[in-house]
Amino acid sequence: MRRIEVRSAAGTYPIMLGADVFTQAGSLVLELGFRRGTKVTIITDDTVASLPFADTVLTSLDEAGFVTQTLTVPAGDSSKSMDMAIDLYRGLLKFGMRRSDLVVALGGGVVGDLAGFVAATYLRGIAFVQAPTTLLAHDSSIGGKVGINLPEGKNLVGAFYPPRAVLYDLSALRYLPVRQWTNGMAEVIKHGIIANPELFANLEAKPLTECPLPDTLEPILAAAIQVKVDVVQADERESGRRQVLNVGHTIGHAIEQRSHYQLGHGEAISIGMVLETKLAQARNLLAQADALRIVSVLEAHGLPVRTPADEFSELRGLIDVDKKHGSALWTFALPVAIGDVRVVSDVRPEEVEAVYVQSLRAAVRCQGHKLT
Amino acid sequence: MRRIEVRSAAGTYPIMLGADVFTQAGSLVLELGFRRGTKVTIITDDTVASLPFADTVLTSLDEAGFVTQTLTVPAGDSSKSMDMAIDLYRGLLKFGMRRSDLVVALGGGVVGDLAGFVAATYLRGIAFVQAPTTLLAHDSSIGGKVGINLPEGKNLVGAFYPPRAVLYDLSALRYLPVRQWTNGMAEVIKHGIIANPELFANLEAKPLTECPLPDTLEPILAAAIQVKVDVVQADERESGRRQVLNVGHTIGHAIEQRSHYQLGHGEAISIGMVLETKLAQARNLLAQADALRIVSVLEAHGLPVRTPADEFSELRGLIDVDKKHGSALWTFALPVAIGDVRVVSDVRPEEVEAVYVQSLRAAVRCQGHKLT
Repeated sequence: MRRIEVRSAAGTYPIMLGADVFTQAGSLVLELGFRRGTKVTIITDDTVASLPFADTVLTSLDEAGFVTQTLTVPAGDSSKSMDMAIDLYRGLLKFGMRRSDLVVALGGGVVGDLAGFVAATYLRGIAFVQAPTTLLAHDSSIGGKVGINLPEGKNLVGAFYPPRAVLYDLSALRYLPVRQWTNGMAEVIKHGIIANPELFANLEAKPLTECPLPDTLEPILAAAIQVKVDVVQADERESGRRQVLNVGHTIGHAIEQRSHYQLGHGEAISIGMVLETKLAQARNLLAQADALRIVSVLEAHGLPVRTPADEFSELRGLIDVDKKHGSALWTFALPVAIGDVRVVSDVRPEEVEAVYVQSLRAAVRCQGHKLT
Repeated sequence: MRRIEVRSAAGTYPIMLGADVFTQAGSLVLELGFRRGTKVTIITDDTVASLPFADTVLTSLDEAGFVTQTLTVPAGDSSKSMDMAIDLYRGLLKFGMRRSDLVVALGGGVVGDLAGFVAATYLRGIAFVQAPTTLLAHDSSIGGKVGINLPEGKNLVGAFYPPRAVLYDLSALRYLPVRQWTNGMAEVIKHGIIANPELFANLEAKPLTECPLPDTLEPILAAAIQVKVDVVQADERESGRRQVLNVGHTIGHAIEQRSHYQLGHGEAISIGMVLETKLAQARNLLAQADALRIVSVLEAHGLPVRTPADEFSELRGLIDVDKKHGSALWTFALPVAIGDVRVVSDVRPEEVEAVYVQSLRAAVRCQGHKLT
């Protein structure tokens, strides 16, 4: 088991990474300072609840002397709603959860964001532990961003609220459907682009198109996680450096919303990374060779790289409402090399439109090509 | 204008206290570092919106170059709901409010708690300024506690989220109805009991049964505010010292809920302070002379001191759900002298019941007395 420490304003918390984390969940929570008899609510979704490791976590906590309950929400992004948060508050109240008790978020990004938001706001904040069960959640569970959606958009309501620990059991990842695995790899690749050229080169040399054994996976994920940790430590509340993590996300979020979440998060940000790579090229920030490597490594992992056939006008409003923007000009985190990203805050929407329209034409040509 | 600084983990913020604060609202917000052109949403209630100073604040912000809107909620505690929070999120989205923009909470404790919660969670947190317009809010606007109610109880959902400033215009207080003034005095008296025997003696010598001129009020409120500031600086997240502020509140909250908010907050905590004073006596923590002084100063300000005719069983569950308790034994902040409070964590519910039942009998005897 590998331990990576994350410093945050609210204190340091560990990421425990390995093949055997969930069987030790109880003793790990005891080590965090929670006493036997503390109430622990596991919040999970109905997909995860049916997998064998859900029982492993519960049993481990029970055996360590915690008083447990499990609250289950339907799987899927639509559970990141205020209605669901209210149901969960009630579930915590009914169980008699107090400030000294603990929430464990067992699941993917949706469960982590939702359970984290509930923990951040229940009784003005109680402790929570992230127990991610997807590859995407290697990203979302670190850094303390929690939140829910409004009908108007994703993550419009939330908080910066770090977990007390991240318990990341790599053997849980073998239950992931291929598409979810692929989606998760988009963020791993992103972390290579941001700050780790060796990680990127490893993924180029040996694309991880399916979940490898924990021993192979651990160093790769540790490298990706370390990129995220370094960035959020430098800027916990996203006022500067943390913006580099938005590579692919500014356009990607809009594409994800526009697809009504038919595209997975990783798929949407894969397309977003391609478009933002092209934007970086259009601004002469990125060499063509590097741009090609980015597109190529995404493709090698089975991620989509072509712009969906939406009019730009349909995306523009969605990008505009995105909270990362503070003015009429847009802010983007653009790759300037493999392993280096620059935040630019003077992007005119028209520049993005030009890149978008060009990609749209290329995609259509490409499809036309296939048909002939 | 007097300036009191409050240190918090998120930075230091000023309380601006005086007779002329609202006319200078715009320049004060500029001094906080917000630029002309920043969007400012004033959140207020329909009672405050109709008072002249609401326009004063708006005009001052407009003239300083901010882009303003006002969102108005119905006056009263029922506005501290999730439904109202969602309405406000939408109002902020519609106005295009971004992370760099500002919410101003103009009103009493309900508006401050609600608008503060919305600011704490909108886009994971945007800046807000407290502009309290009641005497009670001299307390609630300081220390960063924000929150909303669930049908199950008060403040069950919320955050610790300090404002960027508190703009407290004492001339606004002359619009307060007498009952609201009286309610506010309960917290001023409480701050004397906690840590300022001179303040308490002043209130004994010259009860403030109505709003005096700002020059008279300013030093008294500054003293009360300083007590609160000292406590929250020592313990921002209510893990220790801050519990002393709960004098009167542990029972008071339950009484307030049980009355279905027919009792004002100050009225309920006045009764709570009397009961907790008796609990302190029963534990031999407080001299009888001091206990009498506490009851007497509350009465002199027109505050209720008699236990309402509820069965203890009806209150017990309400005290139990109260978030301040971490175990089967209850925690109380009990006065041990005028100007000194001790937190005790080993109170058995039966002790509270004994004090309560005794007070209930005394109150009934007293009423019987009147009737003969």
